[in-house]
Amino acid sequence: MNQRLFSFIGSNTGPWTVTAIHAVCGESLAAVDRIEMVAGDAGGTADAAWILRGATSNERYVIRTEKDRLVEKQQGLGRPQATRAALIPLRKNDAWWALTQDERREIFEAQSTHIRIGMKYLPAIARRLHHCRDLTSAEPFDFLTWFEYAPSDESAFNDLLHELRSSPEWRYVDREVDVRLIRHTA
Amino acid sequence: MNQRLFSFIGSNTGPWTVTAIHAVCGESLAAVDRIEMVAGDAGGTADAAWILRGATSNERYVIRTEKDRLVEKQQGLGRPQATRAALIPLRKNDAWWALTQDERREIFEAQSTHIRIGMKYLPAIARRLHHCRDLTSAEPFDFLTWFEYAPSDESAFNDLLHELRSSPEWRYVDREVDVRLIRHTA
Repeated sequence: MNQRLFSFIGSNTGPWTVTAIHAVCGESLAAVDRIEMVAGDAGGTADAAWILRGATSNERYVIRTEKDRLVEKQQGLGRPQATRAALIPLRKNDAWWALTQDERREIFEAQSTHIRIGMKYLPAIARRLHHCRDLTSAEPFDFLTWFEYAPSDESAFNDLLHELRSSPEWRYVDREVDVRLIRHTA
Repeated sequence: MNQRLFSFIGSNTGPWTVTAIHAVCGESLAAVDRIEMVAGDAGGTADAAWILRGATSNERYVIRTEKDRLVEKQQGLGRPQATRAALIPLRKNDAWWALTQDERREIFEAQSTHIRIGMKYLPAIARRLHHCRDLTSAEPFDFLTWFEYAPSDESAFNDLLHELRSSPEWRYVDREVDVRLIRHTA
């Protein structure tokens, strides 16, 4: 098993309670009560309405100066105060994937300032990106991004999404679902 | 199933007869008589000594001017005169994958002229690159490259490999196997 693989299981059990699911673009996901994020391939999980899989991987766009600043500012998942989360599965269209590396970087950062926008919201918003496009199976999304933050940072998180979704890069997004979560304390 | 996935089956059947297998770096692959390349995941194939899987994907380094020249010069697989082939599975080390995009591009092209070297051998050498690193399963290699050429171009192909393997990029290669093949005509 790919050691960088994670599965997101939508069902009626799990530590994260769904407060909202809405399609930003394209088809939505089926409504579920809970989400569980597990390491590895949860392929055989019973009673799941859906399972999304993705693997963390090497960064595709950041350059060294950006990476150093990100590493200095960003925090990891699982902070006690980060009781809110969002799972945002997203697919880009064929036109995006037909672009060359310089063209994608130009749209991603020079035009859309994707990295600079994300940086503004550090360390409040913790983030982990999972890639789905090159898995063995055909997956419904290209990326799954998981975000964690404190309740008091929810409006900042909404601002972050608004900035990104208004950028030229988002013209290439043809499916995006926004799933909001609260950590369940039994 | 990922529609860009291919499997390379090493066994005693298949259209390509193995003439040589040798490890350039790291552990070799078990000796086999034949190789078959099939679309999709050949996971359940009986009597295979080994199966390697990889998916074609978007290019990670080429810029538009390079891509346009490549597309203009390169030819596809399956040419009647291309009765020789090579399967070259390759893995890069952790130091490579920890580099940022600009650092990898710098080593790949500015220092190693990977794209410029490849271009010199077009259209004689046809090539398809498969990525393994982000598959669902843990794979023994990061890349599988399949090359096809006419018998008269074999020495040019050896020159191509010699140039690449002498480049700074190859300092990051920690496993590479070179499998040479002749198309079997029953």
